[in-house]
Parts: sequence; C-alpha cells; structure tokens
Amino acid sequence: MKITSLTNEKVKFWNSLNLPSQRVKNKKYIVDGDHLVIEAFKLNCLDTLIYNDFLPKELESFSNKYQVTNEIMKKISNVSNFKNIIGVCNYTKGSLQNIDSYIALDDVQDPGNGGTILRSALAFGFKGMLISLNSFDQYNTKFIRATMGAFFNLPVLKVDLYESLIKLKNDGYKIISADLNNDSINIEELPFLDKFVVVVGSEGNGVSQNIIGISDYILKINMNSKVESLNVGVAASIIMHHIFEGKLLKNE
Amino acid sequence: MKITSLTNEKVKFWNSLNLPSQRVKNKKYIVDGDHLVIEAFKLNCLDTLIYNDFLPKELESFSNKYQVTNEIMKKISNVSNFKNIIGVCNYTKGSLQNIDSYIALDDVQDPGNGGTILRSALAFGFKGMLISLNSFDQYNTKFIRATMGAFFNLPVLKVDLYESLIKLKNDGYKIISADLNNDSINIEELPFLDKFVVVVGSEGNGVSQNIIGISDYILKINMNSKVESLNVGVAASIIMHHIFEGKLLKNE
Repeated sequence: MKITSLTNEKVKFWNSLNLPSQRVKNKKYIVDGDHLVIEAFKLNCLDTLIYNDFLPKELESFSNKYQVTNEIMKKISNVSNFKNIIGVCNYTKGSLQNIDSYIALDDVQDPGNGGTILRSALAFGFKGMLISLNSFDQYNTKFIRATMGAFFNLPVLKVDLYESLIKLKNDGYKIISADLNNDSINIEELPFLDKFVVVVGSEGNGVSQNIIGISDYILKINMNSKVESLNVGVAASIIMHHIFEGKLLKNE
Repeated sequence: MKITSLTNEKVKFWNSLNLPSQRVKNKKYIVDGDHLVIEAFKLNCLDTLIYNDFLPKELESFSNKYQVTNEIMKKISNVSNFKNIIGVCNYTKGSLQNIDSYIALDDVQDPGNGGTILRSALAFGFKGMLISLNSFDQYNTKFIRATMGAFFNLPVLKVDLYESLIKLKNDGYKIISADLNNDSINIEELPFLDKFVVVVGSEGNGVSQNIIGISDYILKINMNSKVESLNVGVAASIIMHHIFEGKLLKNE
C-alpha cells in the first residue's frame, strides 16, 4: 500500500511522535535508518515499517509496512538528511536483572551527548544507563541516532535519580560521582568494586549536591587549569574507559 | 547608535557571515555570547560588537559597537537559543612556533565534534590542531561555540593534511594515527615522544590510507566487540587524556 498524501491520518500520527507528549501517550517512538529499524525488528519492538523505495531483505517478511513518498519521509523524519526507512517502535520495559555497572546522568539536557555516552557505555562494558527525570527524553530520535545502535543493546531507565541511588546503595552498590571539589580522588585511585554506579552531571551545574552527599567516591579528571570543564560525553567516556581498561568491571 | 531594521545593510552583511564563502571573502567570522566576545576583544581580533540591551563592563571601552533589536540578534545568531552579544571578528593567522604536540583531524565533518576535540586538546595540554581541507570550516559558529573558549587559546590550521604531515615527519615529528587494524598497538604501549601528531579520522572512514602509510604508530582503543566505533570526539579525547596522564607531553 502506498501513501502519497501529507494529510493522510497515518502520516499525521507518525509525525506526531516527534512530540514527547504524543510518544508518552501512545507508548511509541520513531527510529530511522536501516541499521536501527532492523535492530528494532529483531528485538520484536517494531510496530510499523515506513519506507520510500528500497526495502532491505531483512525486513521483507515484516507485514505491517507502508510505502510513502519522499516528501512524507522528510516530514516524519524531521531532519534535513532524512533516511529512507523509518520504524515506529513500541516502548519496551528495560530489565534491571544482573546489572553490576550503571552510568547515570544527572540532569543532562543534550540528547546528542546522552547518545554518545550510551555508545561509549556499550563499548566499555557498562550494563545499563539511568537518567534523571530532568534529563532529555530517552525516546528522542536525536538520542537514539547518537547511540549508533547501542539503544537496542543496553537498558535506559528514566528514574528519580536520588531515590534510585539510595535504593541501589542499600543493595550494596557504590556511588561514584564525577565532580571537581576538594574531596575528589583521581580516577587512577579508584579500587575494584563489586557493583557500582558512575554519575555525571550537566556541564553547567555538575552533579546535584544531594547526590554528592550520598556518594562513596568523588572522581576528578586531571586537566590544564585553563579549562573549566570537559564535554560531558567526553568526561563520562574517559571514566568508563578507565574502568574498562583497569579491569575494574566483573567479567560476564 | 541603534539599528532596528532587518534590511539595514550592516545587518545583511553580518548575517552573510553565516555563509562560509562570505567568511572567506571578508576574512571575518562571528562569535556569540559574553565569554567568547570578551576573549576576542582581549586578543585584539574583535572588529564589531553587536548587542541587544546589556553590555558587560569589560566591553564598554570598545568603540565600534551597535545596539540592535531582539529580532536582528536572532537573525544574525542563526540559532534558536541566541545570545545577547555577538562579535564580528577578524581572521588571525595561527602561529606554529614551539609546538610539540598536535591533534589532527582527517576529514571530520561535524563541527560540534571538532569543537569538543579542541576543548579536550586544551584541557590535556596539546598545543595546536590541524584540520584537513575536507573537514568542517574552522570559522563555523557551531565549531567555535563547541570549543567553549578553547578556540582563542589554541591555533587551528586548515591544511593539506598529508603534505603537512610529511613536512612535520621530516622535522622529527612522530605520526600517531588512531585506527583499528592488525598493526594497532594499545594506547598503553605508546612511548614518550619528543614531538608528535595524533591523527583521528571520520567515524565512517577512519584515517586515510595514505596517512596510515606514513604513520609511525597505529593506535587502537580496546573495547567491547559489539561496538564498531566510538564517537570521534570521545576517541580523540581518550587518547589525549592518556598522553596527558601518562606524562608523555613535555613540560612547558
């Protein structure tokens, strides 16, 4: 079936999923590009497949699909360099079983930085991501794109971060916050830990004071005094890389 | 003097500097926000100051200034979250004297990633950046913004990268390329080097084969096999951080 009208009801609905409120209401979100849509299909969260002309053979067996015009593709995709395949996906509940290492984002606003961090988390053996309620929306297309597929490989949970950290601490997790203050230790000094959460904050404000207050370790990254801070994606990745290389993660 | 018309010739000229061709022709570029404009003023490259209402006292003594409306500010700034101060700056020639450590970008397209890398370069003691002719434009506002001020602290030179590396090699520099192939060594194995250039490539293509061919060291970053590559800003920053922490840089 081919849809050609920009005012078609389905087109309107798909495009509405660019709004966070509509994603929450419908429990659906959009991913674009062959790679992400095929991943969604494999994980059984693909609801609708929208394509322009070419359909990769991995997706041929998927039945709920619609062919649309270039113009419609551009509208739904919402970016200038839009891809030729879009998937409408169902929300899935991330699982927290057997996770020993989390990266947590405390009020990080930029979905691109968030995506970079999830991509690094998968690269460096971390098992899940927590994001505070005031951080970006984890079903934002820009976030999913920036994860380069990691989105479908690691659970991402939006939580009241302070409350969740208190619970994890009671379960034996150590809380490691990245911050620059007098109590900071260098990342080289971090010991092997059984279960832990690494928390990074926004570039402007850092990690919230109440989370600093319950942290077991406050980490700093040595740098030139001319620079006030690093990009948050860089800071989180340097810490995760150090933990990975230092063999501070449990083997699976 | 206050300008209120969007069709004023000065406004048209300032706005034209959002185009790379106009920047090259006029040898001028735009920076926005208090922090960057004040830096430009201190370094004597500020040509014109454009502001909306408030003027920081550091800039009061600057004479070539224009007050404009909100609407004009938004037009010149070219982003939705525009700042209240814009500076038109003159191109300056970067100096290559006494530089022992460069970060070099081989065909990196995204100015945001480029800015993140320059910011990390300043944080981790690198002395300059080379970018290949096919990389982003170093006077792109998005790049300058992402450097968070590092733009005014480190020289950034757009060059024929292969030719420049050949010259530097003849001058005793070692070429270190980040890439994943059989000749790769882990960053832990990198020795102390007197003068060197670290080269990173685009995420899709990596470092060009002709540059790989003249490299003294090919570096890899260990990671989980599920991930094909890291964000280029992250990869470059991890390598520079390692060199900084490993005291592989000469003291100034």
